[in-house]
Amino acid sequence: MSATPIRGGITSAGGFSVGIGEAGIRESGGPDLVLVASDRPASAAATFTTNLMRAAPVLLAEEALAASGSTARGIIVNAGCANAGTGGPGLDDARAVVAAAARHLGCEPLEVLPASTGLIGSRLPVAAMVDTISGLRLRRSGAASGRAARAIMTTDTRPKERAVSVQLADGRLIRVGGMAKGAGMIHPQMATMLAFLTTDAPIGPAMLRTLLRPVVDRTFNQVSVDGDTSTNDAVIVLANGAGGGPPIDGDDRRTFADALEAVCRSLAIAIASDGEGAQHLIEVTVRGAADDADARAVARTVAASSLVKTAVHGADPNWGRIAAAAGRSGVRLDPDQMRICIGDVPVYDGTPIDFDERRAGRILRGATVPIVLDLLIGSGSGTAWGCDLSAAYVAINSEYTT
Amino acid sequence: MSATPIRGGITSAGGFSVGIGEAGIRESGGPDLVLVASDRPASAAATFTTNLMRAAPVLLAEEALAASGSTARGIIVNAGCANAGTGGPGLDDARAVVAAAARHLGCEPLEVLPASTGLIGSRLPVAAMVDTISGLRLRRSGAASGRAARAIMTTDTRPKERAVSVQLADGRLIRVGGMAKGAGMIHPQMATMLAFLTTDAPIGPAMLRTLLRPVVDRTFNQVSVDGDTSTNDAVIVLANGAGGGPPIDGDDRRTFADALEAVCRSLAIAIASDGEGAQHLIEVTVRGAADDADARAVARTVAASSLVKTAVHGADPNWGRIAAAAGRSGVRLDPDQMRICIGDVPVYDGTPIDFDERRAGRILRGATVPIVLDLLIGSGSGTAWGCDLSAAYVAINSEYTT
Repeated sequence: MSATPIRGGITSAGGFSVGIGEAGIRESGGPDLVLVASDRPASAAATFTTNLMRAAPVLLAEEALAASGSTARGIIVNAGCANAGTGGPGLDDARAVVAAAARHLGCEPLEVLPASTGLIGSRLPVAAMVDTISGLRLRRSGAASGRAARAIMTTDTRPKERAVSVQLADGRLIRVGGMAKGAGMIHPQMATMLAFLTTDAPIGPAMLRTLLRPVVDRTFNQVSVDGDTSTNDAVIVLANGAGGGPPIDGDDRRTFADALEAVCRSLAIAIASDGEGAQHLIEVTVRGAADDADARAVARTVAASSLVKTAVHGADPNWGRIAAAAGRSGVRLDPDQMRICIGDVPVYDGTPIDFDERRAGRILRGATVPIVLDLLIGSGSGTAWGCDLSAAYVAINSEYTT
Repeated sequence: MSATPIRGGITSAGGFSVGIGEAGIRESGGPDLVLVASDRPASAAATFTTNLMRAAPVLLAEEALAASGSTARGIIVNAGCANAGTGGPGLDDARAVVAAAARHLGCEPLEVLPASTGLIGSRLPVAAMVDTISGLRLRRSGAASGRAARAIMTTDTRPKERAVSVQLADGRLIRVGGMAKGAGMIHPQMATMLAFLTTDAPIGPAMLRTLLRPVVDRTFNQVSVDGDTSTNDAVIVLANGAGGGPPIDGDDRRTFADALEAVCRSLAIAIASDGEGAQHLIEVTVRGAADDADARAVARTVAASSLVKTAVHGADPNWGRIAAAAGRSGVRLDPDQMRICIGDVPVYDGTPIDFDERRAGRILRGATVPIVLDLLIGSGSGTAWGCDLSAAYVAINSEYTT
């Protein structure tokens, strides 16, 4: 069975709720604190930034996962302050916030995972956050889920939440939902990608971790807005088993992983298309690579190329920039064999092709710009998502001062 | 002895001359063809793009160096057409142009190295080029050298030529000169970096090659304008021994390499500061790394970060972006130990520092913005050069269509 999209997001799966508060962390005001809660202990798996400069919440969340045997009762998220570059005092701040969330949920601190996004180098307003957390009301409604997705936004222009349901082999329906924030600045600082997923599928932490990694590699790790990896990037999934029944195994592993991937892919695409200053989603698909990892690497390099991004911005069917980006991807390929299409228009097949430039231009002016490369080497394939590079991106990231 | 800057460029070293012609390769008109000639066989060494999509002139130049035992009589360069992505016919075109240059110089085709920059995918106007080459007058004057540096420009805003003289241990004076073109578009296509160097030092091809590689790694390979590696990048040095005397050996190797590096560094800096749309040269120096390669890698990542580039554009003393770029460089480092200065203003030493933001802002508004990171791990050091990212870069690369 393939996953069916349903309305909702982080509270769509059974047994999950959210509390949304305003702790004055954002200068601009508005909700800036979200507590995601499971009504029972959930298996937890996560992937974090590869940046060596890791924010306090990233360090603490890793520590908690190790100490709890990868189970969790909740996630406490704030926007407005990244709590990065803050050293030991920043870790203490994060611990205090986590402790408050654990008290509110009636669980151990190591069962709460923290995440932050916002200004690097500034400290969390711990007292205000602790106070706000103690008054949070947990809700499961679709409206609450939407408000939570909105509360974690920074310069995102729209909230990002998705959910699917899928039927397991024995007929049980399980749900996977999630919310994400994309590349945005708060007072202009580091862009951070955060994604939180919940599911009521019964699944142990080890298998959850095993299934999450390749899904993240094919989805969130294939998104680029500006090539800068944040200090705070995190993808966290909680599986609380509220759907009941025996643990997922056998063919259901694939069914569940596909549902997880559907939500992750959809959130990843939402992040790319809402990149700072972006007017177009660029979807680069690579086929015929030696393996999937090669295909993904080529797709990422093309989607992240400044010259490809500006060409899309200018609706220029500039296959030379696409081919050249593929050529510097570090992947073994033969440019004299490669084929490139912009949408359904072949533009290069080892030598230049006379193509309908007006038709290619129309494709480049669309909301989604599909670029397809066939390396004609093997059967590996992969997709990456990016966005055009506009003067607005430069303005967003340079016109303010700290 | 250290190298002394002198006026001039590609013809400053004894026995070198240039011919400049107009073959109608550029749509905008003007000189677009340069023949660099040595009056005797010269040792030749070169480094080429790592992009797997390699232009015809790159393939042919490598072939010629192998076939000739790394000796050459000249370099034939054109702007306006990259001769890349043109397959077998493009190789034939390059061979015809090389043959014409060889006839004009009275040497073998394998003694002439081709280089091209401009539009990817278009063909060279071979007949016009052959005709133009046959009428070229070779000149050694400073004026001719300057015109040559101008003829290879694309969207560079100023010509780039440098020269030095240096005294060897036995009192002989030798000269090293060169010219380069930087990141520019012609009709907007791939940015290409080309640099040509000449010296009258007597030095064999093997030693020339040995000395060139680390120099290029510390200079041209440390420059980033937009992260896109061209299909045509080439650095070529010719050493014709016109300075006379025995081959360079012993301590003179270091003296010569330093002179070569002085010219390469100065040209590399000229390329970065004339990056498309750039208003500031960003000079990132990394100290205290485990080794020089680590230091150079961190410096490159910081100099190439879109977020650092936009912060400099906006005169924002945003150390968080600098630290985060270092953290994702792939180099082992400890962000809690690292120190960062903007010019002479310490802004981070493992934790945020209260610093004079107005003073840092003034430094960021200067023509050259020095950023210094000390990793406090070892004694490795390195520098990289980049430029700010402006709305003008986006305009240059998106507002035209092919």
